[in-house]
Amino acid sequence: MRPVIGFLTDFGTTDHYVGVIKAAIAGIAPNALVVDISHAVPPQSVLAGQRLLRASVPYFPPGSILLAVVDPGVGSSRRPMALRSGGCIFVGPDNGLFTPWLPGEAAVELTSSEFRLPQTSATFHGRDVFAPAAAHLAVGVPIDRLGPALTDAVLLQPPRPETREDGTIVGEVVHVDRFGNLITNIANVRGGTALFRGRELPALSTYGMAGPGDLLALFGSEGELEIAVRDGSAAAALGAGVGEPVVWRQ
Amino acid sequence: MRPVIGFLTDFGTTDHYVGVIKAAIAGIAPNALVVDISHAVPPQSVLAGQRLLRASVPYFPPGSILLAVVDPGVGSSRRPMALRSGGCIFVGPDNGLFTPWLPGEAAVELTSSEFRLPQTSATFHGRDVFAPAAAHLAVGVPIDRLGPALTDAVLLQPPRPETREDGTIVGEVVHVDRFGNLITNIANVRGGTALFRGRELPALSTYGMAGPGDLLALFGSEGELEIAVRDGSAAAALGAGVGEPVVWRQ
Amino acid sequence: MRPVIGFLTDFGTTDHYVGVIKAAIAGIAPNALVVDISHAVPPQSVLAGQRLLRASVPYFPPGSILLAVVDPGVGSSRRPMALRSGGCIFVGPDNGLFTPWLPGEAAVELTSSEFRLPQTSATFHGRDVFAPAAAHLAVGVPIDRLGPALTDAVLLQPPRPETREDGTIVGEVVHVDRFGNLITNIANVRGGTALFRGRELPALSTYGMAGPGDLLALFGSEGELEIAVRDGSAAAALGAGVGEPVVWRQ
Repeated sequence: MRPVIGFLTDFGTTDHYVGVIKAAIAGIAPNALVVDISHAVPPQSVLAGQRLLRASVPYFPPGSILLAVVDPGVGSSRRPMALRSGGCIFVGPDNGLFTPWLPGEAAVELTSSEFRLPQTSATFHGRDVFAPAAAHLAVGVPIDRLGPALTDAVLLQPPRPETREDGTIVGEVVHVDRFGNLITNIANVRGGTALFRGRELPALSTYGMAGPGDLLALFGSEGELEIAVRDGSAAAALGAGVGEPVVWRQ
Repeated sequence: MRPVIGFLTDFGTTDHYVGVIKAAIAGIAPNALVVDISHAVPPQSVLAGQRLLRASVPYFPPGSILLAVVDPGVGSSRRPMALRSGGCIFVGPDNGLFTPWLPGEAAVELTSSEFRLPQTSATFHGRDVFAPAAAHLAVGVPIDRLGPALTDAVLLQPPRPETREDGTIVGEVVHVDRFGNLITNIANVRGGTALFRGRELPALSTYGMAGPGDLLALFGSEGELEIAVRDGSAAAALGAGVGEPVVWRQ
Repeated sequence: MRPVIGFLTDFGTTDHYVGVIKAAIAGIAPNALVVDISHAVPPQSVLAGQRLLRASVPYFPPGSILLAVVDPGVGSSRRPMALRSGGCIFVGPDNGLFTPWLPGEAAVELTSSEFRLPQTSATFHGRDVFAPAAAHLAVGVPIDRLGPALTDAVLLQPPRPETREDGTIVGEVVHVDRFGNLITNIANVRGGTALFRGRELPALSTYGMAGPGDLLALFGSEGELEIAVRDGSAAAALGAGVGEPVVWRQ
């Protein structure tokens, strides 16, 4: 069985950071398949990283390892961790990135020097701590050999939409994708209408049900309400971005 | 023999879309080698995707699978398809993306639920329909098990240059590459001179034959006429882009 | 043992160039693991490519092949080369890119047509010359079969900081990373203070030792002095970039 390592960071791919992490993995687990999820998480945005992980993990094969490094606290007292939860193993900083999978079945602090690179820098734990941990897990090292149990992992929750007495849900745009679609934090609702910038938008099933250039609402591939423009960019057409309010009225 | 899947989309690599497609493939065909061609096709530009495919396919090993998703019609009545042609298999939407390889030896509509993900969304066929089809083909499922024959695939031709009575060819810039080179739709001509912005440019063999900073014309690695600036960007220097006329005079 | 090919270019990933090189490698060495270092080297900047290689090579497994193509002289008389040095093999243009590893144990000019693609273009040696050379080396072809010895490889040294009589070191910013950190060419010094834009900055061990938004100096993961802003971008905050002077005072 070939181990799969899902890989997410905010490092970008202009610098060599992502490449040297893969090189370090290749030295320990040459047979592992590294699958890039994204390296364009907004710098140090733990919640944006958590959101991409949440949308991706269900599509990884059972037993996959998720190496995720969005790590504003690198070199501080924040702890490096690994977490086994729901059939996968997560490796990264203990800063709330893995909240949706906590407490899971087992969590450890990555302290064992045996499973780090020989020299550990203060600023690049992705390469020196997290990559070797993920690679050793990929070749079958049990999680509890990587360090002592960690039972009080940091939790970080995304902004939740507010549900009012009349059933109206007030949410917000939490992400703009490459197509300019405005992804909201309203999900898995039915039977209603989106309100955005004073316009009423019934939720369609597909982009194609709107006319070319029309503004529309629909539920995206993760069940999240999104505001889109057919064959265009809602973000560009409306100058809209993260944080804008969106209302769902039953 | 390790199966190779060439992979082209307009999804970008900022979001998780490309990653979850690779995760879905890894669950079905863990031994396949996925080779990214580009994920930066201009959003929903079927012709730009077709152009990149055409330049890439000749360099893939025989038997490769080409998974290409530039899909403005996702969720509409446009059909998902697979096509065997010239020793490769193409998987993606039936919207003209695969015109250069049509009609090929066999084409099918991807209707078999056995070779889709268990739940198929209306907006992300890349993950739910095309990736599983490509992965199953990679592990040896015969193309005709994926659905019924498709005999009337959509055709989409790129703009052709016009050849005038005196042999002059009037084409246009169809792509600007990362170096700012202006790639035209004039190809495989000989014995003449390019006219661009009122300047006569004899076609050189290499960039190095021009002086530093000089404007030049040459035939690129795909045989296409291009306008370039030695050690610089023709696009930036001239403010030129896609659609500008270029003339070739015999 | 699975061969590893580290891969660096200035081709970007918008075009198909990087993909067809990987396709060409897959046809010759399907079992090789290609690890992207970066494809966003500033166009034709040999020194920037050399710097990324230098930071990456120590983390690649012994025996790795480094395929690096930053090649402003493609198609001119500059020679294509392979170099065995320090346990790795380097493949790319003879333009100084590999200076830190010269003279090494063996260097050859890549002239053997047996190890090129059947048709060699004048403008895309990455695909037609360097990729097949790297792939054949990956499957065990000895370096000396690729061409005759090359003993006078081109050398190119990065700008060195100047050390004054009083021990003060005058360097400069040589790179801005994705986080806006200003990386300098001052490295491996101790016991002093950075001067930047008239401010004195003692070197901290980690970003976390500064207050949020504070300007700070620290030694990065490669031992290089860098100027940073805690939880922010020094480049954006100060409008600073490559070439700005930085002083280190003992």
